[in-house]
Amino acid sequence: MASTFETKATIATFGGKLLKLSHKSNATQTPMDVNLYLPPASNDRKVPVLIFLSGLTCTPQNCSEKGFFHAAASKAGLAVLYPDTSPRGADLPGEKDSWDFGEGAGFYVNATAEPWKKHYNMETYVTRELPEAIFGAFADKLDKTRVSITGHSMGGHGALTLFLKNPGMYRSVSALAPICNPSQCPWGEKAFGGYFGAGEKSQWAGSDATELVRAKLKSGEKLPCLIDVGTGDNFYNQKQLLPENFERAVKETGVEGVEVRYQPDYDHSYFFISSFAEDHVQHAAKYLL
Amino acid sequence: MASTFETKATIATFGGKLLKLSHKSNATQTPMDVNLYLPPASNDRKVPVLIFLSGLTCTPQNCSEKGFFHAAASKAGLAVLYPDTSPRGADLPGEKDSWDFGEGAGFYVNATAEPWKKHYNMETYVTRELPEAIFGAFADKLDKTRVSITGHSMGGHGALTLFLKNPGMYRSVSALAPICNPSQCPWGEKAFGGYFGAGEKSQWAGSDATELVRAKLKSGEKLPCLIDVGTGDNFYNQKQLLPENFERAVKETGVEGVEVRYQPDYDHSYFFISSFAEDHVQHAAKYLL
Repeated sequence: MASTFETKATIATFGGKLLKLSHKSNATQTPMDVNLYLPPASNDRKVPVLIFLSGLTCTPQNCSEKGFFHAAASKAGLAVLYPDTSPRGADLPGEKDSWDFGEGAGFYVNATAEPWKKHYNMETYVTRELPEAIFGAFADKLDKTRVSITGHSMGGHGALTLFLKNPGMYRSVSALAPICNPSQCPWGEKAFGGYFGAGEKSQWAGSDATELVRAKLKSGEKLPCLIDVGTGDNFYNQKQLLPENFERAVKETGVEGVEVRYQPDYDHSYFFISSFAEDHVQHAAKYLL
Repeated sequence: MASTFETKATIATFGGKLLKLSHKSNATQTPMDVNLYLPPASNDRKVPVLIFLSGLTCTPQNCSEKGFFHAAASKAGLAVLYPDTSPRGADLPGEKDSWDFGEGAGFYVNATAEPWKKHYNMETYVTRELPEAIFGAFADKLDKTRVSITGHSMGGHGALTLFLKNPGMYRSVSALAPICNPSQCPWGEKAFGGYFGAGEKSQWAGSDATELVRAKLKSGEKLPCLIDVGTGDNFYNQKQLLPENFERAVKETGVEGVEVRYQPDYDHSYFFISSFAEDHVQHAAKYLL
């Protein structure tokens, strides 16, 4: 293991190890925490990696503790990588004033507006810097050619958009209760207005999963995508998620392979995430193994 | 459902429902929170119940969120009942001064010393009052003739002692990192000294799993018991748990059916509990189904 990461904890769980890591990021100009679950199979051979992007307010700890991905990842032989949701400690004015903007709410984009653009470069961090660092440090355990991505809520937005923006980077994508059309919902309007500027609608569209389907994909093209949304999810019901808009774009574009499931009564919490974690691991495993 | 319980939340998870309940307890003279997981099978027929007793500082929420008993309980068709770890709000002097005594640390005994004996009657609460209330309120969903018990740390002590003190009440017992010989460890000495009095050693022995094996069981008798302990558990290594003393009592008494497993590297946390939750559900299911 290279020395780019500090290992803060090594925890035995589900037959493998959960590593709590920290490193310095050039993309965000801050230290970044990241968790890595190594399944038992990683002792014998290189394993593929499923990246889990967390939602608003979360750190790498929440899903590591409550998401239940490790049970299925252990059986399938997948590593799970949990990046943080934003830079922390950048000390920008207003950074901690909202739970849905700034710290804990990086939206997996590269900010272009002041004062955010110096630190809030989560897209570069997640798609370039972190993979390079983690596949360098764990070259003996992780197979950098087999990577999939998933996420929850804001992290579901991140998974969908980073997949669509980076053809070939990930073998599959899935999302739990994702923000599907941020340009059209209050969370997205606030975040994109802040990180890009209120008038920069072309940049908004460039990081909006629904718009990206229309802009990037063609009829008959395959999008290996599983989405679960709970019908008891208060944010779904408040129209923050808008999965129907994403489905409409998929249908009107003629894209194939997308499955969107509406799960009766489930809410937005980790009780929902953990209930379907196995399905999302198995979805990724179909493309990774 | 009878009106003895107030339902604070109903959460869809793993195909079933987690109910966050509250009721007034005569045993503790306080309101008591309790969680109940109902598997999907409980819609069609009465299901057996596995009681999970939590460890020091915990509420019914910790294991409900991080223990992942629901994944296996859903498949097996078991309900899981999570009592709290002590009365709360009794407002006794010193009740909140320690994390290992008083609030969050009731040790599943009936206190006999002042000022604790008015409220700290968790043994009566868990073995009499709560079952009567829950099987009354959920008479159409729960089978009161099929109950097993398990727990973690202080709750493992509770599971082992309540099983041994109440022949016929539970069909099986298991424990994760249990306090096995509280009379001989700092946690137990503090708790029993407080709840019973420093000199009341016969009462100490009457709530000590290792002593109960010697006092209650005979050679050849069957104790349907599974115990897991992590070798990286700091409390195990500090000799708070003393599973070897329990094993010695089992061996010297000639009791059969006890399996104690030492799990390499695992710690005392929910990362450990969740890793073996399925095994403990399946252990109970062998006797309940």
